[in-house]
Amino acid sequence: MSARLVTAGPPSRAQQIRSFLQQHDLQAWIAWRPDELLMLSAYFPFWGASLLVYFADAEPVLFVPQIEPRDHIPAGLRIQEYPWGDLKCTDPYSVLVSALGNELVKARVEGEKVGMNPGAARTSLPIQAAEQIPIPEDFAGHLSALTAKPDAQRQTAFADLYLRKTPEEIQAIRLANRVANVGLQVFFENLQPGITETEVAAAVESIIYRQIGRDGIFHSRGWAMVQSGPNSADAGRFNRSTARRLEKGDLVLIELATCVNGYWSDLTRTAAVGSPKAAVAQILAIIRDAQQAAIDGVGPGVFAGHIDALARDRIAAQGLSSFFTHHTGHHVGFRYHDPGFGIVPGGSAILEAGMVITIEPGVYVPERGGGARIEDNVLVADSGHEVLSRIEASKQQGASSHDQH
Amino acid sequence: MSARLVTAGPPSRAQQIRSFLQQHDLQAWIAWRPDELLMLSAYFPFWGASLLVYFADAEPVLFVPQIEPRDHIPAGLRIQEYPWGDLKCTDPYSVLVSALGNELVKARVEGEKVGMNPGAARTSLPIQAAEQIPIPEDFAGHLSALTAKPDAQRQTAFADLYLRKTPEEIQAIRLANRVANVGLQVFFENLQPGITETEVAAAVESIIYRQIGRDGIFHSRGWAMVQSGPNSADAGRFNRSTARRLEKGDLVLIELATCVNGYWSDLTRTAAVGSPKAAVAQILAIIRDAQQAAIDGVGPGVFAGHIDALARDRIAAQGLSSFFTHHTGHHVGFRYHDPGFGIVPGGSAILEAGMVITIEPGVYVPERGGGARIEDNVLVADSGHEVLSRIEASKQQGASSHDQH
Repeated sequence: MSARLVTAGPPSRAQQIRSFLQQHDLQAWIAWRPDELLMLSAYFPFWGASLLVYFADAEPVLFVPQIEPRDHIPAGLRIQEYPWGDLKCTDPYSVLVSALGNELVKARVEGEKVGMNPGAARTSLPIQAAEQIPIPEDFAGHLSALTAKPDAQRQTAFADLYLRKTPEEIQAIRLANRVANVGLQVFFENLQPGITETEVAAAVESIIYRQIGRDGIFHSRGWAMVQSGPNSADAGRFNRSTARRLEKGDLVLIELATCVNGYWSDLTRTAAVGSPKAAVAQILAIIRDAQQAAIDGVGPGVFAGHIDALARDRIAAQGLSSFFTHHTGHHVGFRYHDPGFGIVPGGSAILEAGMVITIEPGVYVPERGGGARIEDNVLVADSGHEVLSRIEASKQQGASSHDQH
Repeated sequence: MSARLVTAGPPSRAQQIRSFLQQHDLQAWIAWRPDELLMLSAYFPFWGASLLVYFADAEPVLFVPQIEPRDHIPAGLRIQEYPWGDLKCTDPYSVLVSALGNELVKARVEGEKVGMNPGAARTSLPIQAAEQIPIPEDFAGHLSALTAKPDAQRQTAFADLYLRKTPEEIQAIRLANRVANVGLQVFFENLQPGITETEVAAAVESIIYRQIGRDGIFHSRGWAMVQSGPNSADAGRFNRSTARRLEKGDLVLIELATCVNGYWSDLTRTAAVGSPKAAVAQILAIIRDAQQAAIDGVGPGVFAGHIDALARDRIAAQGLSSFFTHHTGHHVGFRYHDPGFGIVPGGSAILEAGMVITIEPGVYVPERGGGARIEDNVLVADSGHEVLSRIEASKQQGASSHDQH
């Protein structure tokens, strides 16, 4: 399957970043969204008001609110606090921009050699996840005197840094998937007639929150959305929970986003309450088959479009292609939806070792009263792949837990 | 207390918006963040990729993703879908900008008479709350050819539109507070030695989620953060839950953000497990007293700084002013933290009927092993105020539920 020899996995995070800076003739990069900080430095902010300067030739500097908790900031960052959260300071961002300017001068960095990402979207929430980050959306504009002009090619190359996860990052994403599976177990245990979608979803989120304190977990939050019976036929367009009560024979779909210490898992399961009704049993069977076919194809050197086709062709062979309305997958790990190429029809991007992608074909047929999607998070290994999200299955396979082929 | 006669409450939402447009010589306003849409049109987006054009002289136009649920879009908006979520469309935002341009041409609106808000921060999450909104942060830049240049005075005036809630909005915020109180009841019921902070917090979030389906609630989500014993002394800097087990005599603080159908409640409670330890009993008593003093002062015509002083002076009188490190309150309702003036020392802004503010003094003393904050959401009434967040208390006061003075 692999036309390419990969022997040592992806380069370290520091190597990837320094190589990016060098290729773009940059002396520093400025970042502030939670997933940018995590990817660049393994630090996951509490408030979402921290800012990192990553220098090509010096220790990174991290500006944090004076009220930021300090116990989970990794070593290797020079910490500076600024008066965010200080009652006496009415404009902490001016103080931040000024302190940042001083750091750049001290490091003898020229403005045109400093990059940043002005146009982020769908970025991660910080630990304080009840609102979008406090740094204003036009903040990049306030940095324009200190930085190079926005450059689309550079933005794309920066987004590419998300794609190849290091062994440490893979371990962290594995942990997020392990926690997500604790939630999924609660989902399966609750598939009984009479319980509501929101009751199932709330129980899943609850057990995920309660993983804090185990295995070095300081942040664990799930967003569970459960759709049952006819509602599952909406799941290709949106995922939410209603007060509908589960009925015998329903298909029940859970979409589950899980963030553990900043790293993400994105999973979907569909199961029946008892035996599925005849009208939807075939849908579930087709999706199981299509998803497994796509997973089986994952490995280094494979085209994204090939993986998409593996799932899509199975669904088309059953005459249901018009009900599979979305992509087969996307990158995941630093966000619920990482930037980067999609696993889409005709996708010409090539999978590489260290990439973590979702495989999530779905079929939604309102006239049959149901829909199904199964989504796993799959690591492209040095050869073949590993399904990070199938905890029981990988246990059964023994210590290596690699699904080689 | 009130030097000002307010007889009919604030103007309707449409009146407020049209008056804003007229004062700034604008023919239209473009908005896309969830709380902007809610405030302008009472529509709360699912994906966070919707865009509203509010015309001075015509029906508003709402662009929604083709996969947006339609069942909660209010009447009175002209709906147009655009191909966000369409597998075949690689750049839906270009389609959106182009369709928007066509609408502006059809309405004969000149670019320099179209406003927007390029610099939003801490905005609300949409119903799909697991990541920041998908519209990129530099999207305002893509609209620059269609709109007037950014204007700081106009941004401030737009933010002012959040301040005066209409009767319908107050009802919606009241409902969010009612749901939050269902969560708080679970908090109080769980204050037993041996339970962990995360177990308490997860139980609170769970019951809040399960309110979906009652009283017209289609979206209900809580973010509960519980800090006990020594951890409560951190609560002036940040709020999070750990695996610490509650102990007899601990102070336990819950910070609870609740979003119901897009409208927000922001509450804090502090209570003891049994009788508080001697070292922290005084802290709790002082905070109860200071918070009530500030609430008692709320009414139309009152300076924000006066309210702050009512709480701060009580705390200072006990020699603890250096442990009250934050503001006394902020506006709330369209967001967890609405824009607008703070209830801060020396604040010269004046409260008006229809405003909803938090009152949340706190004292956090690490050397005594605890901290306390009590936070309520208080409506400035035509005279006096109403505490929207004290459900039991207001029930006891009978049907009017206004705490007049």
